[in-house]
Amino acid sequence: MTKAITPEWIAVDWGTTHCRAWAMGADGEILADARSSAGMGTLEREGYEPALLDMVGAWLGGRDGENPMRIICCGMVGARQGWIEAAYCAVPCPPLSPDLTRAPTTDARLDVRIVPGLKQQKPADVMRGEETQIAGFIALNPNFDGVLCQPGTHTKWVHISAGEVVSFQTAMTGDLFAAISGHSVLRHSVSVDGWDDDAFDAALSDGLAKPESLAARLFALRAEGLLHGLPNASARARLSGLLIGAELAATRPYWLGQQVALIGADTLCAHYATALAAQGITAKRTDGDALTRAGLIAAHSLTKEPTT
Amino acid sequence: MTKAITPEWIAVDWGTTHCRAWAMGADGEILADARSSAGMGTLEREGYEPALLDMVGAWLGGRDGENPMRIICCGMVGARQGWIEAAYCAVPCPPLSPDLTRAPTTDARLDVRIVPGLKQQKPADVMRGEETQIAGFIALNPNFDGVLCQPGTHTKWVHISAGEVVSFQTAMTGDLFAAISGHSVLRHSVSVDGWDDDAFDAALSDGLAKPESLAARLFALRAEGLLHGLPNASARARLSGLLIGAELAATRPYWLGQQVALIGADTLCAHYATALAAQGITAKRTDGDALTRAGLIAAHSLTKEPTT
Repeated sequence: MTKAITPEWIAVDWGTTHCRAWAMGADGEILADARSSAGMGTLEREGYEPALLDMVGAWLGGRDGENPMRIICCGMVGARQGWIEAAYCAVPCPPLSPDLTRAPTTDARLDVRIVPGLKQQKPADVMRGEETQIAGFIALNPNFDGVLCQPGTHTKWVHISAGEVVSFQTAMTGDLFAAISGHSVLRHSVSVDGWDDDAFDAALSDGLAKPESLAARLFALRAEGLLHGLPNASARARLSGLLIGAELAATRPYWLGQQVALIGADTLCAHYATALAAQGITAKRTDGDALTRAGLIAAHSLTKEPTT
Repeated sequence: MTKAITPEWIAVDWGTTHCRAWAMGADGEILADARSSAGMGTLEREGYEPALLDMVGAWLGGRDGENPMRIICCGMVGARQGWIEAAYCAVPCPPLSPDLTRAPTTDARLDVRIVPGLKQQKPADVMRGEETQIAGFIALNPNFDGVLCQPGTHTKWVHISAGEVVSFQTAMTGDLFAAISGHSVLRHSVSVDGWDDDAFDAALSDGLAKPESLAARLFALRAEGLLHGLPNASARARLSGLLIGAELAATRPYWLGQQVALIGADTLCAHYATALAAQGITAKRTDGDALTRAGLIAAHSLTKEPTT
């Protein structure tokens, strides 16, 4: 018979397309983990509690209404269309607020708290989920003063100073890449995978040097395929290079002359590291998953402390 | 009983999503017209002849293999994935070549000729269909020296001199607008219709003045909706303004200080006219459909002349 898992608390990263949960021990060690495809994008409001119980129900042994399980969640679960809205905190502020939002549950064993996202009034910007990675990064690098870049569907550039988020800027580069490569005429020219380092490098420096030419560069991927046999893998790398080049042009005030740390998936971060290196920036790279857990641990600690 | 329609020849505009045909009299007058949704995007190679007969079969009375009906087609019907590839002509050249490509038919009453598109080796670019509108424009404005702008899914900027296409540049602005507004996170923020002139004007001048900021401006449409209640119709106009602004930044060598004529649909051309007017360019506007027919008439005339 398997020994029952009896965590101290549970950490949950609940995004748009997936959900992951970790059974946490008293000293921050992971006793077990679970994952589900019940992301925020697929759930109605009343679907969250059953989806959570499906994942973590086996870890609730011995819990009751007197001694419920503390469950700390971050991500889109706290969006307006999620389980319950966890109102944004306005920067400048620390990445984590001690005021987590309690989600309504019918099962008395559950004490679910949701980490709020961050907002910036002007230029208007929002994040939800990334703040937890940022908190994890700061927990592990308390003296960091510089810029975090979190590449992804909506890449975040975040200015950090004295443990606070000073300002941030979103570039929807991954989202644009998917929309353009999947739903414009370039779907005929850009492969689903494959890569070409030289094409990426050339497009990146072109996109960064002449961001005003972006609109003229895109259709050329189609035309060069038709006229000169540009391979679809090269077109894919060039599209990525043009879009990341445009992003770097737009976010220059964030990275120019700064200490930059990249947080996220390996392949994508490698492309950003290459791009920044060409601009003389040596970016430190950190795995995002570990930082999400470190941030959830930091959020859990905050909920145990008296608020000031 | 209705009098039978017996045209001299038939003009056909056969695009990706639709097909239109006109029964033409001896003096260029339109005797009848027909349309179909059997666009190039929906047809296999063997489907073109039946689709054409569905539209124009009633106009073939008295024709036979000795005296077939001349049918002049322009558009994507001549693409590699169309009925038969009509190889591109390389600019600089007149918009129409006398060497039309004959499509294979089994019905001896049909003599189908397809107008070739234009290509530019460097920067690589192609057009197919627009060359016929350009020919129509030049037929009606033989002394025009300047730039044509044909806004649409793939907007063309075309430098015309001495009756020839000197060079051209495609900006896939309409395609980008559809992909971004329909298939990125902005689908939640950008309405399907509605408009806001002030939002368009401000975004346009912002996009044109700071094209390097485009990547930073897009996600703000989402964030301003969430934080400041930006209406979806305003977000739609701003997205359009940002993209047309980026296009104008990329095509500045085409329009700056030039005589510009806009060809195309009314609403879209009005937006471009507004944009160009803000840059001190008064663009002449012409209806695209009339020019397509004028261009097909010019192409028909060429097929009657001995080639040199």
